[in-house]
Amino acid sequence: MKKVGIISYGITPFSKEDQKIESVLLKSVKNLFENNPNINRNDIDAVLVSTNNNSKYLSPILSEMIEIHPKIAHSIESLCNSGTNSIVSAYSYISAGLADMVLISGAERYDSPGQILEWDNSRGEYKHPIFWASIFTKSYKREFSISDEELAVVPVKNHKQAKENPNAMSNKNFSIQDVINSKKLTDDIRLLDCSRPCTGSASVILASEEIVRKNTDAPVWITGIGQKTTSASFTKNTSFSFMESTKLAVESALKMSNKTISDIDVAEIHDAFSVCEPMALESLGFANLGKGIDMIKELHETNNFKINPRGGLIGSGHPLGATGIAQTIEIIQQIQSNAMNRQVDNAKIGLVHNMSAAATSSTVLVLEK
Amino acid sequence: MKKVGIISYGITPFSKEDQKIESVLLKSVKNLFENNPNINRNDIDAVLVSTNNNSKYLSPILSEMIEIHPKIAHSIESLCNSGTNSIVSAYSYISAGLADMVLISGAERYDSPGQILEWDNSRGEYKHPIFWASIFTKSYKREFSISDEELAVVPVKNHKQAKENPNAMSNKNFSIQDVINSKKLTDDIRLLDCSRPCTGSASVILASEEIVRKNTDAPVWITGIGQKTTSASFTKNTSFSFMESTKLAVESALKMSNKTISDIDVAEIHDAFSVCEPMALESLGFANLGKGIDMIKELHETNNFKINPRGGLIGSGHPLGATGIAQTIEIIQQIQSNAMNRQVDNAKIGLVHNMSAAATSSTVLVLEK
Repeated sequence: MKKVGIISYGITPFSKEDQKIESVLLKSVKNLFENNPNINRNDIDAVLVSTNNNSKYLSPILSEMIEIHPKIAHSIESLCNSGTNSIVSAYSYISAGLADMVLISGAERYDSPGQILEWDNSRGEYKHPIFWASIFTKSYKREFSISDEELAVVPVKNHKQAKENPNAMSNKNFSIQDVINSKKLTDDIRLLDCSRPCTGSASVILASEEIVRKNTDAPVWITGIGQKTTSASFTKNTSFSFMESTKLAVESALKMSNKTISDIDVAEIHDAFSVCEPMALESLGFANLGKGIDMIKELHETNNFKINPRGGLIGSGHPLGATGIAQTIEIIQQIQSNAMNRQVDNAKIGLVHNMSAAATSSTVLVLEK
Repeated sequence: MKKVGIISYGITPFSKEDQKIESVLLKSVKNLFENNPNINRNDIDAVLVSTNNNSKYLSPILSEMIEIHPKIAHSIESLCNSGTNSIVSAYSYISAGLADMVLISGAERYDSPGQILEWDNSRGEYKHPIFWASIFTKSYKREFSISDEELAVVPVKNHKQAKENPNAMSNKNFSIQDVINSKKLTDDIRLLDCSRPCTGSASVILASEEIVRKNTDAPVWITGIGQKTTSASFTKNTSFSFMESTKLAVESALKMSNKTISDIDVAEIHDAFSVCEPMALESLGFANLGKGIDMIKELHETNNFKINPRGGLIGSGHPLGATGIAQTIEIIQQIQSNAMNRQVDNAKIGLVHNMSAAATSSTVLVLEK
C-alpha cells in the first residue's frame, strides 16, 4: 500500500459568525496555502468538501474560487464524522493511484442542519443530540457510580485547554461549581456539558509519498485507519455507557499501524458532551471500564494536555463537517512540536477519534512522524 | 492496481412517486439482493449513498434497514454526477485495500434540491439548468448550422429506445413534429428536449477480484476511470458547444483502460437536454465536430441502440443521484448480453459518460467483460 502523508493544513477561528458556507470554506483553504507556500495548487487533483450544509456542488465551487481544476470533486456527509470520512476517502484515492494530492476542506455554519437527525423516530420528539447524551449520561453515572461533580472535570479540563488554542470558541476557565451551576437542560445534562454548534472551517492536503517529500520537511503520515458503523438509531446501541463502534474502529486502526493503545502519545477525542470523553477513553482502551474519569482527573491535575489538547469539541466548538479535520490538524501540530502552550511532551504518535450520532459510527486515525 | 468488478445491481422504475428518500433507496437495494442471491450481505464493508437529497446520515440509515454494519458509510454529492463519483470512490476503497465489497446506492426524489444551483450568480435569475441548456443549444445550432428539426432526432431516438426499457419513465414514441410542436420553454428549448426530474434509485456492488470471482460467473470489470472539473459556473466554460471536461475525462479513462474510442461497443451519454447528446459524442471523440447529429440520425434510422440504449436521461428520466449508477447498470446488462430488446450486438466494451452543471464536471468510466 502506498504511503500517504499530510503536507499542509489551514483552520479558521471557530465562532458564531453568520457567513456563507462558501466563504467559510475558502477561509481555511487560504490559511492552508499561507502555511505552506511551497505547494503548487495546480498539482491538487482532487477536492473533497466535508459538510452537512445543504448547498450543492461545493467542491467545484471551492475549486473555482481557488482557480484549480481537479479531477475528483464532491461533497461528503456523515453527520459529525464527515471530516474523517473525507480524510479516509482522500487516502484511498491516493493509495489507489487515482490522485496524488487531495485537498480536504470541512466547513459548517452555526445553524447546520446536521444537528438534528430527522429520521430517527426511536427518539420520538427528541431528535436533538442532547437527548441521547442525556440517556448516555444517566446510564454511565448509574453503571459506574459517577457523580455529576466527578463528570464535571471534563468541561473544566477542556475549557482550560481551549484557552491555549487561539482558534477555540471558548476563552474562559470554569470551575466544577460553574459546571454544576450552569443551566440544567435535562435531568442529566447542563449547558457546560455540551459542545456548541459554530461556524468554522478546517482544511488539510494529503499527498502521496513522493509529493510529501517534495513539499515538506516535517511530514506526518497516516498509518492507521479504522471505521465502523453499527446502526443509525441510537436505541440500537448494545450499551448506553460504552461505544461499540469506537472499540471496533480503534482495533482496526491500531492493527493497521502495528501499534497498541499505550503507544499513543496524544489523542483527540470526540467529546460532544461531557460523558463522551470518559466513555470514549474506555472504548478506545486508554482506561479500564468506569475509570475514564479517574484518568481525566489525573491529567487535569497534572496539567497534562494528552487528551484533547486543543480543548476538545466542548472547548473548541463543534462545526460538524470541520471537526474531524480540526482534530487531525491538532495532532499534526502536536507531532510537529508546533502546538505552542498546548504541546504534549514527546508527541510522536497521535490518534484521532471522530464519531457521529451517539457513536453509531466512529472513525479512528493513527498519525505518525 | 487491484482489479475491481461489479457483482450485482438493482434498480427501480423511474416515476413521479412521492416516496421518502429512505424507501426509494431501499427499493433498489432489495432488487440488487434478488438479482444475485449468492451475495452474503454481511460481507459488505462499505456503503456509499449518492444523492442530492438534504436528509443526513442516509448511509448508516440504509445500512440499518438492511441489517449490515459496514466500516465505511457516508453520502456523496456532486449534483448530477454524484453517481459515478460514488462508483469511483468505491473503486478507490477497494483498490486501496480498505474495503472488499462496497454497496453504492443512488436515489433521488422528483423534487430534488439538486435541480437548482443557488450559488451560480453568473446565471442571474436563471438558476435552472434549462437556461444553460438554452445557451448551449443556441450556440451549437449556430456554430454547426443545425436546425431545430435536426436536433429533434435526439428525443425521438431516446424515447423510442426507452420504450424497450421497463424502468424508463417514458413509454411513448414521438415524431420530429411532436418534438417541434411541444411546449416552447425558451427560444431554443422545447419540453421534449428536456430530461425530466423523477423519483428513482439504482444500486451496484463493487468488489475486489477474489470476491467477484466467488460471487458471479458473469463479472464486469471497471477498467477505465476519468474525471475532470473545469469550474462550477457554466459561464467559465471555454465553449458553449463543446464539453471540455468530458474531453479530458475520456482521455484519462481510455488511457487507463488502454483503449481507443473506436473500441467502445455501447455507451451511456449524459443527455440532460437534446443538445447534450451530439455535443458529448463530439467531445468524447465518437463523432467529428458538428457531426454528432449525423451519427445519431444514422443510428436511429438503422435502429442501432449503441448510444443510450436504455433511452438516456431524456427517455428514462433523471433522478440525479441515481443517474450515473443507472447508466452503469445499463452497460453491465449490455456486456452481460442481458439487455433484452435493447441489446446491442457484440457489446463487450462499454462506456459511461456522466456530468454535472453544464458539463463543468464530467466522469467517464470504461467497463469490460
